Amino acid sequence: MTHTPPVTLDDVRDAAARLEGVAHRTPVLRSGTLDERVGAEVFLKCENFQRIGAFKFRGAYNAISRLPDAQLAKGIATYSSGNHAQAVALAARELGSSAVIVMPEDTPRSKREAAAGYGAEIVTYDRYTGDRVAIGESLAADRGLALVPPYEHPHVIAGQGTAAFELLEDVGELDGVMTPVGGGGLIAGSAIAAKGLRPDIRVIGVEPEAGDDTRRSLRAGRRVSIPVPRTIADGQAAEIPGELTFSVNRRLVDDIVVVSDDEIRAAMRFLFERLKIVVEPSGASAVAALLAGRVEGVPARVGVIVSGGNIDVGRFAELCGG
Amino acid sequence: MTHTPPVTLDDVRDAAARLEGVAHRTPVLRSGTLDERVGAEVFLKCENFQRIGAFKFRGAYNAISRLPDAQLAKGIATYSSGNHAQAVALAARELGSSAVIVMPEDTPRSKREAAAGYGAEIVTYDRYTGDRVAIGESLAADRGLALVPPYEHPHVIAGQGTAAFELLEDVGELDGVMTPVGGGGLIAGSAIAAKGLRPDIRVIGVEPEAGDDTRRSLRAGRRVSIPVPRTIADGQAAEIPGELTFSVNRRLVDDIVVVSDDEIRAAMRFLFERLKIVVEPSGASAVAALLAGRVEGVPARVGVIVSGGNIDVGRFAELCGG
Repeated sequence: MTHTPPVTLDDVRDAAARLEGVAHRTPVLRSGTLDERVGAEVFLKCENFQRIGAFKFRGAYNAISRLPDAQLAKGIATYSSGNHAQAVALAARELGSSAVIVMPEDTPRSKREAAAGYGAEIVTYDRYTGDRVAIGESLAADRGLALVPPYEHPHVIAGQGTAAFELLEDVGELDGVMTPVGGGGLIAGSAIAAKGLRPDIRVIGVEPEAGDDTRRSLRAGRRVSIPVPRTIADGQAAEIPGELTFSVNRRLVDDIVVVSDDEIRAAMRFLFERLKIVVEPSGASAVAALLAGRVEGVPARVGVIVSGGNIDVGRFAELCGG
Repeated sequence: MTHTPPVTLDDVRDAAARLEGVAHRTPVLRSGTLDERVGAEVFLKCENFQRIGAFKFRGAYNAISRLPDAQLAKGIATYSSGNHAQAVALAARELGSSAVIVMPEDTPRSKREAAAGYGAEIVTYDRYTGDRVAIGESLAADRGLALVPPYEHPHVIAGQGTAAFELLEDVGELDGVMTPVGGGGLIAGSAIAAKGLRPDIRVIGVEPEAGDDTRRSLRAGRRVSIPVPRTIADGQAAEIPGELTFSVNRRLVDDIVVVSDDEIRAAMRFLFERLKIVVEPSGASAVAALLAGRVEGVPARVGVIVSGGNIDVGRFAELCGG
């Protein structure tokens, strides 16, 4: 363990400059009803309005934009069946490069088409027999592509941190910042930004009950692996924290709390009916933690990253319409 | 007929000043996909994010804020089972007054509770035998209340015009403005604001096919009554234009186009999946007209009022989830 941070506030600042005019500066929404329910002033940073519908565009674009022209000419590779796939596909296109995305064979067609729609090549594998990291790495090596993984990359982490950075710029002093936790890139970047700007801010991560690998790992003081989580929060179904993200998070994250799938559903309904915004399950988990009273001593002014909104009407109705 | 406008751009400016810091200055959203589909630059003024979830707060607050203190002490009356009811209830409370709302007996409990939640008294009547205007007027006379109707009032119209006013302030020159049309207050205010600022701007109203009383009236050159419209756009189910609103709209509105309920549903789904926002049927009708190709010669830069987002998850799923 080292005390030299692998990613710094300056890296986040630099990412913010690169993203200016490229990523959306997403709005911060408030709700009187939410404040009353939570007993705090809550500031929702709406990354569901980000390009490709999630914060992932920030990290992907930051990472790809730093590659030399010769590498952009060769192309980018990644592995993801979720929002990172679309993020890499769009960022590569915008930067005049090309992307190859490794996805499981059984990825829903809509997700394959979304990435393909941005011009990416899709390579599939069998999720029961294949290892996506190994496949991505060998593909990158064979074709000379630069691998931009979903979170294990300093430029990806710095890019993800720009959402919290903007939030603090826009609303001033906050006592706490909350984000969903999957592989750990969003909370790592957010913690670097938030503690860099305000060292005594409290950083709280939220995991689904079934996917609490980061909570367990922080308790154990080492990366702990869990069985494949069964949760509606598909963006948070990680089995083990990343090495790099965990090295940041063990240093900078104050608490991890967990929420049930029912609490996530209730938060999605609340955000729909009160805030009039569409949020996917993973994106709603931090709001769910507040509404369900999962956070002890809620910070008086708390910023929350609403991380994504990629869910179709049918699936939303299935989860929340009953 | 008179050529002296009953409401002027200055009235809208004055309303905007009164609403500053009270109403939300709602965001203007863009979508590359929407622009591509429509073949124009489309600017969505998101009044679904307004207080009480719809533009109606603007007109109600403007009208009530102009009443003398002695009248505020006595209270306000109105008739509405929709967003105007909540708007009057909230505006009255904020201005230290009280509100009595006349609603049909069979109004869904959620709508009664929403108005009552802001402290309003609810008075019900039988919609098959009663006349809401007469009941409202006699209640106001008996109790000394000021009647603030949903659209037949110059201060209500001026207040509704502030959404288009802000839109033009925020995005600069536009070639056209589109709004949904119910009783005609929103489009009247929008037309006064838009043509006041830019005389050659095109003002386009959108009605549901089954509720095209304003289109028929403009064609006939006089107010025409139609049977109670059957449409999912409950905020646009007017049977006849208002006298005051029609006197403005016959002068300032360039076109009225109509949309089917299916086109409205498709627009609601599009706004959900692409823009990540929740819009009620009436609120989506102007976007529906653009997506369905109902507007001939779409203005190159067109502003659209997305007028409200008050719909619960169950109803949304019923309409759009299939």
